[in-house]
Amino acid sequence: MTETGGHPWRERARPLRLERRVEFDEYEALREFLDKVAALSEETGLYPNLSFGRTYVNLTLFADEDGETLGREHEDFAQRVDDLLAGPAA
Amino acid sequence: MTETGGHPWRERARPLRLERRVEFDEYEALREFLDKVAALSEETGLYPNLSFGRTYVNLTLFADEDGETLGREHEDFAQRVDDLLAGPAA
Repeated sequence: MTETGGHPWRERARPLRLERRVEFDEYEALREFLDKVAALSEETGLYPNLSFGRTYVNLTLFADEDGETLGREHEDFAQRVDDLLAGPAA
Repeated sequence: MTETGGHPWRERARPLRLERRVEFDEYEALREFLDKVAALSEETGLYPNLSFGRTYVNLTLFADEDGETLGREHEDFAQRVDDLLAGPAA
């Protein structure tokens, strides 16, 4: 699955979160990616906010309820999202 | 498809847009709704921004490129989204 732009995961404060933007050249590729992230959410119980249009999606992984910690589960989720984009060879 | 909360379409300015929030009691219902809105986008060529988590989605329909007009196609799209939620009897 080839992304055409966006930016890697970045940590942001207030509220503490990880953000990533992914751009695609067509809607079909975007939807395929969204379905895979949704499956990851159902598997892990972590539900990032996904904000998408036709060829972009912004992913936001908020810290836990206490809003203080971005833990191992967030980093693992972020890595697995990256793996989705790296394609089968990863 | 029963929503459990949110708010109807509202017009907002700067930039001119229509916004609607829909809440569901479970992720499966939310995803089913997202798939139907995506199909509506592919049919009409109108791609609202959809921002969703586990049980909510915020839909934003921006005015045309000129940013000045919310036309008939936006109103029709908004109505068809409402029809998705009103269920088969509608």
